[in-house]
Formats: sequence, C-alpha cells, structure tokens
Amino acid sequence: MVVTRGTCEAALEAGLDRWAAEIRRGDRRALARAVTLVESTLPEHRERAKRLSARLAGAAGGAVRIGMTGAPGVGKSTFIETFGERLCAAGERVAVLAVDPSSARTGGSILGDKTRMPLLARNPRAFVRPSPSQSTLGGVARRTREAVLLAEAAGYSVVIIETVGVGQSETMVADMTDLFVLLLNPGGGDELQGVKRGVMEMADLILVNKADGDLAATAAATVSDYSGALRLLRRRAYDPPAAVMRVPDAAAVSALTGAGIDAAWERLQALADWRRAEGWRDRRRAEQRLRWLRFEIERGLLTAFDADPRVAAAYPAVEQSVADGSQTPDAAADQALDLFLGPRDR
Amino acid sequence: MVVTRGTCEAALEAGLDRWAAEIRRGDRRALARAVTLVESTLPEHRERAKRLSARLAGAAGGAVRIGMTGAPGVGKSTFIETFGERLCAAGERVAVLAVDPSSARTGGSILGDKTRMPLLARNPRAFVRPSPSQSTLGGVARRTREAVLLAEAAGYSVVIIETVGVGQSETMVADMTDLFVLLLNPGGGDELQGVKRGVMEMADLILVNKADGDLAATAAATVSDYSGALRLLRRRAYDPPAAVMRVPDAAAVSALTGAGIDAAWERLQALADWRRAEGWRDRRRAEQRLRWLRFEIERGLLTAFDADPRVAAAYPAVEQSVADGSQTPDAAADQALDLFLGPRDR
Repeated sequence: MVVTRGTCEAALEAGLDRWAAEIRRGDRRALARAVTLVESTLPEHRERAKRLSARLAGAAGGAVRIGMTGAPGVGKSTFIETFGERLCAAGERVAVLAVDPSSARTGGSILGDKTRMPLLARNPRAFVRPSPSQSTLGGVARRTREAVLLAEAAGYSVVIIETVGVGQSETMVADMTDLFVLLLNPGGGDELQGVKRGVMEMADLILVNKADGDLAATAAATVSDYSGALRLLRRRAYDPPAAVMRVPDAAAVSALTGAGIDAAWERLQALADWRRAEGWRDRRRAEQRLRWLRFEIERGLLTAFDADPRVAAAYPAVEQSVADGSQTPDAAADQALDLFLGPRDR
Repeated sequence: MVVTRGTCEAALEAGLDRWAAEIRRGDRRALARAVTLVESTLPEHRERAKRLSARLAGAAGGAVRIGMTGAPGVGKSTFIETFGERLCAAGERVAVLAVDPSSARTGGSILGDKTRMPLLARNPRAFVRPSPSQSTLGGVARRTREAVLLAEAAGYSVVIIETVGVGQSETMVADMTDLFVLLLNPGGGDELQGVKRGVMEMADLILVNKADGDLAATAAATVSDYSGALRLLRRRAYDPPAAVMRVPDAAAVSALTGAGIDAAWERLQALADWRRAEGWRDRRRAEQRLRWLRFEIERGLLTAFDADPRVAAAYPAVEQSVADGSQTPDAAADQALDLFLGPRDR
C-alpha cells in the first residue's frame, strides 16, 4: 500500500483511538505514556496531545482533586504514601502528581519520584508519577492540568498534586484542585516553618504530622494553636457555615502509625461533597479553566510573535538597540509590536 | 487663537519639555508628579509618560541601584531611614521606592509610606515615594523601573527599592537593581525568618539588624553563621574573586545606634565600583532591559488581543464554552487565537 498523507492521518487517528481506549480501561502504561506526551513541548507532540485529550475530555472531571504542600522535612512523601494506601484500601483509585520542576530539587526532598513512595507506586490501584523534567513553572502547570484530566479519564477517583512550595507553586496547585491541604511539623508557628504568607489562607485543612511518640503532645498543642488562629480568618464563599462544618480546620496525623489519617480523609470527603452539592466545585473549576484559557492565549500570542518572519528578521536589531541603550525597552517593544501587528493606536 | 490639533500638540510638547527640565533640575514635586504619571495605566497617560521618559533617558543610569528585602519585623523602615540619612550626610542624594503593591500590606509593615520614614522624607537630599496603589506585581514592576530612571534623571545618586518579599517581588527587585541586600533579625536560620529559598542566592550582602543592647551578641553569632554558610555558595560570574572582596558576605548593623551602617555602605560602594569597572554593571543592566522588553511585548500582545473587535465580539462565547466545559481551554485558546491572528499552523 502506498503511504499517502491520507492513510498516514487515518493511521494516526486509529492509533489515538486505541490509545484513548487503553487509558479509559485504566491501563497504567498507556496513561504514563500519555503524561509523557503532554509533557513534551514539541509542536507535533502538542498537536497529538490535544487530539488525545479531546478524545478523553468527556471521561474526565470525576476525581476529587487534592493539593498538598509542606516544607521539606515535614514528611510529605511518607504522609502521601500512607494516605494513598488507606484510600486504595477503601476502594479509591489514587493518582499522585508532583508540580515542582526537577530543577527545584536542590536542597529539598521532593517526592513524586517513584522511589520515594515504593509501596504506593507498586499498588495496582495507584499511579505515582515522578517529578516532571521541565524547568519552568508555566510548563509544569500546563502538563499537570492535562495530566489530571488524563488520570481522571483513566478512572482515578482521587488525584493528589503535591508541591514543596518553591516560587508560586502553591498558588498554582490551589488553582487546579478542589481541596488544599497544608502539612506542618509539630511545634513552631507557620512563619517558623517556612510557610509563605497567603498559604494559610488557601488551606482547607492543616494537618500536623508526626503526632506519635514523644511528639504527640506537641502536635496536639500545635493543632489547638492553629484551630484557634484559623477561626479568626474570614469565611470564604466556598466554605460551609461553621454550623455545618468548620473549614479551614487543623488536625493531628501520624504518617508513621496512621493515626488521624482516616479521619482526615473523612473530613476532606465531607467538604468535597458539600462543595459539589452546593455548586462550588463546578463554579471553581469553571473559574480555573478560564484562567487556564487566558494562560494558553498568552502563550499562543508569544509563540506566534516569535515565529513571525518579519519579527524574526528584525528582532536581533531591536534587542541590540535595547542592550546598548540606544532605545528604551518601551519604545523597542512598540517597534517590535508594530512589525507583528501593523501600526495601530496603543 | 483657534486651538487646532497642531497647536494642541505643540503646547503638549512644550509642557513636556518644561516638565523634563524641572525634573533634571532636581525638583522633587516635578519628579513626584512624573512618578504618578508612570503609575497610571490610562492610554493617554502611558503615551505622555513615554514621551517624558524619552526626554530624560539620556540623563538616567547614573545611580547605584540597591534592592532591599527582609520580612516584616526586621526593622526595614528604620534601617532604610538611618542608612538614607547617613548617605545624604555623606553627600549622596537618595531616592526610596517600594515595590509592594498596597494590597499586599495586610499583616506586614510595608514602608515606603512617608509617615514611616519621617526624617528621611523631610531631608531635602532624599525622595521617599509611598507604596504604589496598583495591585498587580507586573504593573508595579513597570512603574518602578520607570521611576528609577526618572529619579536618576533628577540627580539621585542612590536609588533604594525595597520589598517585604510577597510573591515573586524579590526576584523582580533583583531584576532592576545592581546590588541586593537582605536584612535579617539576630538569631534563627533564614528558614525560621520566613526568607524564601533562592533569596539567599540573590543577596550581595546580608545585614543582621538590631545589633545593639542585649541582642548584640546574638547578632554577632548570626553574622558568623551566615558568613560561614555563604562561603559554601558557588561564586557568581559577577562577583569579585575572594582575594579582592568577599561577596556575598554578612555583617551586623544597628538601625538604632547606627553601628555598622557606614561600613555596610563602604562595602556596597566597593562592590558597585568593582562591578562597574569590570563591565558587570552594564552587562547586567543590558540583560535587565532585555527582559523588560520581553515583558512589554507580552503585555502589548495581550492588550492588542483584547482590543481587537473580532476577539471582543466572539470572546464571551469562547469563555462560555470553557466555563460550561463544552470546550477545553486548549481548544478554546486556539479558536480565539485564530480570530486574532488568522488561521495558521501552531
């Protein structure tokens, strides 16, 4: 048979159909390959990723999406492993994604690497994805948003996205999840634990880990401090009234003994149920998608600008004029934009 | 006389000429009005700001630009006031700008407000600018970059840009200054003081404040801890060899007694001199301008996109399709971009 553009296209389409079907059946290898595809920035891979995602979009959206943050040393990997194992035992299917680019690893114990959660990674009901290799937070954000949808299409009922809080990663994670969990060590205020201003305000549940052995009493005291402090925060529109459920709140857990972990999951489920029933889950997801749209438009505009032959021809000289100071960045930007957009009022 | 477009334009030009001349003479009121102008986002103000800046560009660039950060409670306002007063007494002219948008004030003691530095604000050799009222970091960045050039054109020899480190503001400040100073409290590691990972790597000088009274010994110990730790960092290309000068390094200061402040200024001057002599100041400023160019292009593309009548007409429906989930953000972005750019390969 002669390979024409048409037969090639048909083969590609058939391959994508098969791939999508494998993912929908819950095939972990097919899912892992798809996540690798959405991580790629090559234009042909982007195009294929879009087609694959479009086939699976209808099957996505079903998971409870949980963001988790906590400074290095708080035991986040161990917590997620214990938490994930419990959820799997309770009948859930759990996917774990990490948003921190691998370049952010220095000095921090970033999980997401399979070796860091050996039990969960071997659990047939779990999908643990190593840290992405991309180095920009924007690239990681796009990949992670798409990976969430893929994992949902593959039938995962809980998707955990974790971060060590480098740069603006907490905000990014809160912007792609339904629930946000902050993990702390016993003792010490949040400032003392390197928690950034603003993260407390994003949290739905604060878990004080290591509530076992000698640290149990300290953990209980820390929980009580935070419970008190959290009551002073203004209620967010998407939180239930205090009479229904106290959100945000703090609780003690031990990733080592498992203490408090089932209770934490019950709380998170109850909150997720309330938000879904009240329409907040869907409203917040719609807002998140609109911000994602805006981000993709920004990216697309820049890509088209850079690819424009008139811009490409003139840009080195424009940059040179800015570098040597003969033109201000403002004036040079106007000049470059005129090349691309044609002269217009600005 | 009949007012025509031509006479109007001529009057505007003459007014800008006078304004620029007043700024170059060091008139603080004229400078303050110009900073207010560059803060505006109204298109006609932007246009006037560009023309005013273009008139002053040749007179800018002469100051030592110093970025300063430190968590709330470290005594940053008091330090900058004492530091600024000393510099003025030594013959410098000092401008102080704050990058933190006023919306970031909650809970933090953000300086930049005149009332927070009463002595320096009254000093005829100083220009203290209150916090900007804009709420986006991008808008504040643009305004601050332009304000630096205006202050330089007005003859200020030292421009201090300070931040409390909300969001990515330290990176932004480091990206518009020649020197970067981190202010710390005595005692406690940087994680304990809420200093973000990465800020240490940007610092040229770490100053441990409050080295007076009971805290003097603790401050000395903290300095020695940091001096040791900083020696482990890899030397940056723009730092002098250790034989010439140790950069970054730590030192103790007291904003209260003035101890260590002259020495800190001598160090900063020596480093600024070395970087200028070795070409690093100009190379880094050129890189900063190129990033600014890129930022302005991004902004200009988005502005043109939003102003496009085809986009404006169709965008509500595009957003609706994303909000209700009938289209993925990716596909919707492609659709909106096609409206603006015309169909093309992406």
